[in-house]
Amino acid sequence: MRSIRLEQQGSVENLKMVTEDIPSVQRGEVLVKVKASSLNYRDLAMLKDQYPGVVHDNLVPLSDGAGEIVAVGEGVRRFQVGDRVAGNFTREWFGGKRPSYTEPYGSHSDGWLTEYKVLNPELLVSIPSHLSFEQAAALPCAAVTAWSSLHGPSPLSAGDTVLTLGSGGVSVFTLQLAKWMGINVISTTSSDEKAEKLKQLGADEVINYNKTPNWGEVAKELTGGRGVNRVVEVVGPATIHQSLKAIAPGNEISLIGVLSQTGDKIDYFDLFGTASTRTIGVGSRDDFEAMNALIEDKGLTPVIDSVFPFEQAAEAYEYLESQKFFGKIVITHE
Amino acid sequence: MRSIRLEQQGSVENLKMVTEDIPSVQRGEVLVKVKASSLNYRDLAMLKDQYPGVVHDNLVPLSDGAGEIVAVGEGVRRFQVGDRVAGNFTREWFGGKRPSYTEPYGSHSDGWLTEYKVLNPELLVSIPSHLSFEQAAALPCAAVTAWSSLHGPSPLSAGDTVLTLGSGGVSVFTLQLAKWMGINVISTTSSDEKAEKLKQLGADEVINYNKTPNWGEVAKELTGGRGVNRVVEVVGPATIHQSLKAIAPGNEISLIGVLSQTGDKIDYFDLFGTASTRTIGVGSRDDFEAMNALIEDKGLTPVIDSVFPFEQAAEAYEYLESQKFFGKIVITHE
Amino acid sequence: MRSIRLEQQGSVENLKMVTEDIPSVQRGEVLVKVKASSLNYRDLAMLKDQYPGVVHDNLVPLSDGAGEIVAVGEGVRRFQVGDRVAGNFTREWFGGKRPSYTEPYGSHSDGWLTEYKVLNPELLVSIPSHLSFEQAAALPCAAVTAWSSLHGPSPLSAGDTVLTLGSGGVSVFTLQLAKWMGINVISTTSSDEKAEKLKQLGADEVINYNKTPNWGEVAKELTGGRGVNRVVEVVGPATIHQSLKAIAPGNEISLIGVLSQTGDKIDYFDLFGTASTRTIGVGSRDDFEAMNALIEDKGLTPVIDSVFPFEQAAEAYEYLESQKFFGKIVITHE
Amino acid sequence: MRSIRLEQQGSVENLKMVTEDIPSVQRGEVLVKVKASSLNYRDLAMLKDQYPGVVHDNLVPLSDGAGEIVAVGEGVRRFQVGDRVAGNFTREWFGGKRPSYTEPYGSHSDGWLTEYKVLNPELLVSIPSHLSFEQAAALPCAAVTAWSSLHGPSPLSAGDTVLTLGSGGVSVFTLQLAKWMGINVISTTSSDEKAEKLKQLGADEVINYNKTPNWGEVAKELTGGRGVNRVVEVVGPATIHQSLKAIAPGNEISLIGVLSQTGDKIDYFDLFGTASTRTIGVGSRDDFEAMNALIEDKGLTPVIDSVFPFEQAAEAYEYLESQKFFGKIVITHE
Repeated sequence: MRSIRLEQQGSVENLKMVTEDIPSVQRGEVLVKVKASSLNYRDLAMLKDQYPGVVHDNLVPLSDGAGEIVAVGEGVRRFQVGDRVAGNFTREWFGGKRPSYTEPYGSHSDGWLTEYKVLNPELLVSIPSHLSFEQAAALPCAAVTAWSSLHGPSPLSAGDTVLTLGSGGVSVFTLQLAKWMGINVISTTSSDEKAEKLKQLGADEVINYNKTPNWGEVAKELTGGRGVNRVVEVVGPATIHQSLKAIAPGNEISLIGVLSQTGDKIDYFDLFGTASTRTIGVGSRDDFEAMNALIEDKGLTPVIDSVFPFEQAAEAYEYLESQKFFGKIVITHE
Repeated sequence: MRSIRLEQQGSVENLKMVTEDIPSVQRGEVLVKVKASSLNYRDLAMLKDQYPGVVHDNLVPLSDGAGEIVAVGEGVRRFQVGDRVAGNFTREWFGGKRPSYTEPYGSHSDGWLTEYKVLNPELLVSIPSHLSFEQAAALPCAAVTAWSSLHGPSPLSAGDTVLTLGSGGVSVFTLQLAKWMGINVISTTSSDEKAEKLKQLGADEVINYNKTPNWGEVAKELTGGRGVNRVVEVVGPATIHQSLKAIAPGNEISLIGVLSQTGDKIDYFDLFGTASTRTIGVGSRDDFEAMNALIEDKGLTPVIDSVFPFEQAAEAYEYLESQKFFGKIVITHE
Repeated sequence: MRSIRLEQQGSVENLKMVTEDIPSVQRGEVLVKVKASSLNYRDLAMLKDQYPGVVHDNLVPLSDGAGEIVAVGEGVRRFQVGDRVAGNFTREWFGGKRPSYTEPYGSHSDGWLTEYKVLNPELLVSIPSHLSFEQAAALPCAAVTAWSSLHGPSPLSAGDTVLTLGSGGVSVFTLQLAKWMGINVISTTSSDEKAEKLKQLGADEVINYNKTPNWGEVAKELTGGRGVNRVVEVVGPATIHQSLKAIAPGNEISLIGVLSQTGDKIDYFDLFGTASTRTIGVGSRDDFEAMNALIEDKGLTPVIDSVFPFEQAAEAYEYLESQKFFGKIVITHE
Repeated sequence: MRSIRLEQQGSVENLKMVTEDIPSVQRGEVLVKVKASSLNYRDLAMLKDQYPGVVHDNLVPLSDGAGEIVAVGEGVRRFQVGDRVAGNFTREWFGGKRPSYTEPYGSHSDGWLTEYKVLNPELLVSIPSHLSFEQAAALPCAAVTAWSSLHGPSPLSAGDTVLTLGSGGVSVFTLQLAKWMGINVISTTSSDEKAEKLKQLGADEVINYNKTPNWGEVAKELTGGRGVNRVVEVVGPATIHQSLKAIAPGNEISLIGVLSQTGDKIDYFDLFGTASTRTIGVGSRDDFEAMNALIEDKGLTPVIDSVFPFEQAAEAYEYLESQKFFGKIVITHE
């Protein structure tokens, strides 16, 4: 079988295709034939040595993948051969509080950019029956993050309004999930073409942030001056100030992103009296399964920007860096 | 001005039209010109001396009404003359836990079957701008009960399934609110004609309980065998056994109704291991306002079966007793 | 190594001591040297063929055990050799909603009445550092059930009052945990001697249910007539009627027990307007870990009635049946 | 009767004692003989024209007061003559979400530095029976804020750890309430003498922030490196950086204070991945009543630093400015 390994952080040239033996299952394990994987900003940051945490050398990258169970070890009851599965992003986070120790894919354990993978079946979830493997591979990081942003200790309710920034995976999934929950969506984007796509996906309002640099204030006006009930903040320092202007008092900004590295610092008095902030760490297996139930029920289909063949994984990374996409970038392993 | 008072419990003949002085506001009060009121099963039970609690003689009946503020006392800031308002069913329940003592309309204090009414403005809520007074008068008991049934400590989520019984006010509001929240609805009804109306309102499945006496088991099958996530149990002893068959383990039956007086008792082992049960006591002013925000946002319109003139209040009671209606029975005061 | 297996349901004579090979760990597994186990009413019901579900023949019984990790397979990060662990009762329930399928110990998979056990490390939790293995073996079923009863979607708060029934494991753990949470406890018991022990453990009030058959009403009086905020109902049909009399409106009876098989059925109007009921299914690994953090922090020590040697497991079952115990019955494997 | 009015913001010289008629109750109102009031930092900020919001001239200052009902208007059921009451800080916030419009005491409506006060009885709560009026007058702002900090959408649990800053009213109440809830407390203070008092009140650890400027890091170490579960941040820009170092990932800093006006701004990456932040706006009547139930149950007594006579209200303000107090500063009106 073929795997791609990141020899060390630096550039796409460090992604090496290798041939390895197909691993065999032991007791309590399953073997997954990986059919598709997808990229997230985190993967690019790791490749380019811009990731804030430790990244071990020579691991298989990518946190997101989907495939089919092709063998089960002794005593496995959770899945059968033929079941279609995806891996939860935060490997050992099953539900409740995030465990203090996990072994993240791509940084501490082998990820999904490979053809076969042996796993503890508890790390996997069944995927919605109407999705292709490419579509399912888009879910683990971006869609579960979107789900967690809309839920949490203060979940949004039908009739509330969420503000999404741009058209990356998390923002587009937030838009899609929110609409099925009866939640209004205001989206920002950089072009009229993307604005049109966001409206087709159900965005109630779209603001072009190039033309409207005070988009946070405008979003607040669009809610009759009350402010939005949540901002799904995927960018970071460069946008947080407008996000703080958009939010209604007593509501929450979900901190997700570090797409930007720089921006003005935050005055205490801008935080005080205004918003709650909460950092989203993707989510648990329980979150993933609850989200899949909604996706299955509503027939929601992820928005895939483009699908690259396994051999062109490097090109997929480069395309991600271009920031020209709308939705998710997927790699097919077939 | 005219009021109707229930001299004592017994029959519609005890409803007496009287002429009274229009009350004048004192400090901190508002005067409401009542434009419409609506009936609930509770009102009929009081009239017929079948209500389980105390009912004082000679009070103005009806818990539900809507109207316009026509005068405000000194120091009132919450409303202005011209504001359109409705009364919260549970008068002094503003939010959080239900207070241990309230003065319910119709049993302990004068209700809404009158032309003018002086009130503490904190007992009132603004009504959605797209609703007529007749539509708004339909909300206080039935719609807030429906809202509370879908929320509570274990609120339903988009993708869940609720089972409603029949086509009275609470059941129809539950259907309407649920659909805006992304929740699937299975409804029961007694006729094909009503089934058609329920489907037009968005019911995903309708079961004719006359043709299908094991409707609870059938509802469970309709969810792929998992069971429904909530039953809004408005009937009581006669239906609870099928409701217990419909519910998915770990989910809740909201106990609301006493439309039936008799039925087989409940075996402990039918409760154990199956459902949670929770009695719904309508809801707080905070619930009412949260629901109104959703109604306003989505443009939801209550289903009014029929509107009786003020002079024919007795006929409205009799029509309620006939159980032939679909939705709410309203009285116009104009 | 020695294991005890229940050849088939029936009587203690069907418990057979067998000699087996110590299992060896494979990849991702750990080997636990089991140091102690404990009994619950469920184990007795299985032995005597009174358990409502399926029980496979020839399994090792007992859901509760604790021990030490003596070997770890390739890739295991969660535990190291020497770690002290216990198994979660509901094997594959990690957090969030209970999974639809699990493999319960003793009925569907081998339990803990054995000297060595190979396990997926995700099924285990670390035990509080101040507890002996005997004390830790008392936790999985009874203590986690007690924890779940006090928490859930409507968790009790400091200043609330809980009613416990008798002095079995769940009731005594509820008392201990509640007191650390600032919750008042009213306990029932059958003898003055046990009453004294309950008071020493912190019970604010103890009612002798033999002398006071209307103990539910008395419990309500003891709260100034408001009613208790929770009943931890471990008995079932024989006690539910008094439990319904004790509970304050709007509060919850946690349904746990089936110690009694018979009793009067429940009138709908006794459920309606009074209590919520919620069936407790022990709890998740996340619940177990949260509880252990409290036990560790407060230095809580489980109440052990008696410790039987491994060879006298049958006597432990017989003692459980006698109902003469106070707290937990434990088996030492050393 | 005597009232003290703040002619305009500026200094204590603008506090003017005036003689006014005792107001008479109208329908639905109660007359309170005010027995005691208490000061909060907000009152000093208003006096010195440092308050961020609007403050109307010539109002009676002080948000916190307690007294006895001496007359009730027609139709009042909530209280009787002789009842002991206090006012809720956030006047019209009864429960659930904070209403968009209220009339705060001292800035938009007359406060409690007066001998008699007519009020809508819904704005009042009963006070715990074991408290004097001086003690009860200490509760409305500081104690309810402390309560809200410990609760909210992610309430603390027994066994968690809270970090309090200094020995003002909110911090001392947080310490007292937390201990009754089984929560561990780490406190900071400026002197060994105050440290001793904090320990007597139950603080598990006390850090002298003068001697230990990196008190946030030290607090984290004191929790075994995990971090505290909540910081009750009453100071603001000057302390938020250490607060961010103390908090455990996934836990919340409750933003309350603006005692400091200046400090370094906050880097996005210090918020991201670390804490949630939530601004506390005191709380609702429902919060106040829930807290009072706990205070009553546990016999908690507020810590009063000093009691000034009504004529020396100006001296009370000056003493508040000195920051030498421990607990609350109260004014007696008798």
